[in-house]
Amino acid sequence: MYVIMVYDVNKKRVQKVLKTARKYLKWVQKSVFEGKITEKNLKKLRDQLLELINQEEDSIYWYIMEPEFKPYRKILGKSENISNLI
Amino acid sequence: MYVIMVYDVNKKRVQKVLKTARKYLKWVQKSVFEGKITEKNLKKLRDQLLELINQEEDSIYWYIMEPEFKPYRKILGKSENISNLI
Repeated sequence: MYVIMVYDVNKKRVQKVLKTARKYLKWVQKSVFEGKITEKNLKKLRDQLLELINQEEDSIYWYIMEPEFKPYRKILGKSENISNLI
Repeated sequence: MYVIMVYDVNKKRVQKVLKTARKYLKWVQKSVFEGKITEKNLKKLRDQLLELINQEEDSIYWYIMEPEFKPYRKILGKSENISNLI
C-alpha cells in the first residue's frame, strides 16, 4: 500500500507519534508522512499509534492507495526533501 | 481532479489561506483540505495562494489524483465531518 498520513496531535504526545511513524513512513511536511508500507506494518503502526494518542483529542488520517500509486505532488513554497512532480 | 491539500503556513497568513482554500475544497483536519476540483479552479486557487504565502517560509502540498479517485481513509481518533471508509 501507499499511504499519506496527516495528523493533528496534542503537543504532549506528538513527539512520540513522530518517532513511531518515522519507523515506517517518510516525514515530508509538518503533520504529514507518506510512503509505501505493507499491510502487516500498517497494522503494527496503527496499534502503536492507538497506544500513544488520546482518541478524544487527537486525529490521524491515513489516505490509503494501491501499492503502485505514484503521488503527483504540486508544491507551493518550500518543500522538505520531496520532489515537485508537476 | 481530486486533490488532497496539506499546508504548513505561518499563523500570520494561515487564516487567509484557509478562507481561500475553503472556496474550492473541503476542510477535513487541521492543515488538510480535500475534494474534487477542475483544472481551471486549481489554477485559480494556485494563483490566489501564491499571492498569500511567503514561499520561503510557508509550504503547501497538493496530492493530485484522477477525478474518479475515491479516497480510502482510515481514521484514528477524532474526525471532522468525513467518513472512515475502512
